[in-house]
Amino acid sequence: VEVREIGEFGLIERLRRALTGGHPRLLVGVGDDAAVWRAEGRFLLFTIDSLVSGVHFLPGRHPWEDVGWKALAVNISDIMAMGGVPEVAVVALALPPDMPLDHVDSLYQGLEECARTYDVALAGGDIVQAPQVSIGVALVGRALEGPEGPLLLRRDGARPGHVVAVSGPLGESAAGLRRLLAGAPADDPLVRVHLRPHPPLALGQEAARKGIPCAIDISDGLLQDLGHVARMSGVGIELWAHRIPIPQEVWSAFPREALTLACAGGEDYQLALVGREDIVLSLTPPPTVIGRVIEGEGVRVLDERGHDVTPQERGWNHLRQR
Amino acid sequence: VEVREIGEFGLIERLRRALTGGHPRLLVGVGDDAAVWRAEGRFLLFTIDSLVSGVHFLPGRHPWEDVGWKALAVNISDIMAMGGVPEVAVVALALPPDMPLDHVDSLYQGLEECARTYDVALAGGDIVQAPQVSIGVALVGRALEGPEGPLLLRRDGARPGHVVAVSGPLGESAAGLRRLLAGAPADDPLVRVHLRPHPPLALGQEAARKGIPCAIDISDGLLQDLGHVARMSGVGIELWAHRIPIPQEVWSAFPREALTLACAGGEDYQLALVGREDIVLSLTPPPTVIGRVIEGEGVRVLDERGHDVTPQERGWNHLRQR
Repeated sequence: VEVREIGEFGLIERLRRALTGGHPRLLVGVGDDAAVWRAEGRFLLFTIDSLVSGVHFLPGRHPWEDVGWKALAVNISDIMAMGGVPEVAVVALALPPDMPLDHVDSLYQGLEECARTYDVALAGGDIVQAPQVSIGVALVGRALEGPEGPLLLRRDGARPGHVVAVSGPLGESAAGLRRLLAGAPADDPLVRVHLRPHPPLALGQEAARKGIPCAIDISDGLLQDLGHVARMSGVGIELWAHRIPIPQEVWSAFPREALTLACAGGEDYQLALVGREDIVLSLTPPPTVIGRVIEGEGVRVLDERGHDVTPQERGWNHLRQR
Repeated sequence: VEVREIGEFGLIERLRRALTGGHPRLLVGVGDDAAVWRAEGRFLLFTIDSLVSGVHFLPGRHPWEDVGWKALAVNISDIMAMGGVPEVAVVALALPPDMPLDHVDSLYQGLEECARTYDVALAGGDIVQAPQVSIGVALVGRALEGPEGPLLLRRDGARPGHVVAVSGPLGESAAGLRRLLAGAPADDPLVRVHLRPHPPLALGQEAARKGIPCAIDISDGLLQDLGHVARMSGVGIELWAHRIPIPQEVWSAFPREALTLACAGGEDYQLALVGREDIVLSLTPPPTVIGRVIEGEGVRVLDERGHDVTPQERGWNHLRQR
């Protein structure tokens, strides 16, 4: 049996089972956007994500500065999805010996810009030799705290009656990637969204403070990411195609695939929130309600007449046979 | 200019300069064994290290369980070298799709055994596709604290008059690697030391509690690692060849290269301590004094008659042209 037969999520589930019972220090272990542990009265968040050349970006297409930005931004997105405050990051770089030094400098610059923008302290790391470039970033943050403990946006907090909302437009990043691969320049507006994701960090914190119970960041694709929420919460999710915020630029560039790009394209790094409608709509800026939580299981997309229009593609699952 | 021309340490220095001025949250940033930051009255340690297939281990030679163990152990070694207590780790796995699933299970098992042995909570991670296997582990720990602040073993704490001591035998791991590559089985005693390093974590904590100011773990090679201490402390180090603890098995296996293996072989994951002789010798078990700190710069090895016998090889510097 090879790993492609069970894919990324199968492997994560297998790791969860290998770590029998977790550890008393852990409040949240394998399976949410970030781990949570108790550190003498404080609750800390921990996440790690890697970008691999040829898998997450293509040298010669993706500018190194943007790769550096994104390597940190995707981790900030995970802390956002728990409602936390990112604090300190370390970087593991794997580089081939013939990589031009000015590429590394550009990579550093992008990392530093993102760290400055989100007030994250970059604290060092590790550099090793490898046949191709990869950038791993680990990020620690803290949970906001209320009178009764940490305020966390968890994947398992969705309940029937909740609405599902998203913080911003979907499909731009996937559309931008297609344009980039087709030769569009790095300053094309859709390409910019793909290269420089800006997770709306403050929104996650406001949601946690206001008691929203559930969120996930949209990294692999809306359907796949909400699929984790549905499975871990033991509920079903119904999305309304006409409410999904797909920008005009995405419709113009890919008229027949816009819904699929928005539902399965991934890398939007927007926040999907699940909770009481009045609280969700009180956030600033108010997210767009795109569906609701129901009894049942799975995630479906319906059109205005109630017909199932769920795209076949669901999103990115590393290693999974396609 | 390519990265091989400045190597791993040149790249780290360049990163340090790119992060102009550090961040107010950081007590120790780029350049020590682990970063240190202030988290509301508590001092946390943060480190990251990766093992890359073909660079740090060879599939078919290095059993996957041992690779898993080592991926976490090398990070525990960094926390040890700051005198800290490791707490929580996350893992970034990069795998090719055709990797057999039982190899991944073995890898997980080794990680889990090491986590259990050192009471580290494994909190999850990230799995991505890549052409070859790499395992990145990020580890957070806490610093022990005294009445005046965190008790840290730092690289810049060496002063003339201090002794230099090591926690255990040197050269076994490098000798074990050579034997492994020559076809020795995984249960050969020297090969075991190479495959399953056991950083003496409690010793680092005792040293920190007793006020030892300076330490580093021996990962790249004794000369190279103490070279960082000498440079960052602005001192010279004189080592005495006949005092370096090189086991009989290493002399028997590699009679002409034993001193070089002990001085430059690396991956011993022993602790090198620098401080007052009486305090160093009061530790349990007492480390072996192998030299002293002097005015000047650099690291030299002398024989019993005071002749310079410093091996030409100094240790491992990733990416550096050889």
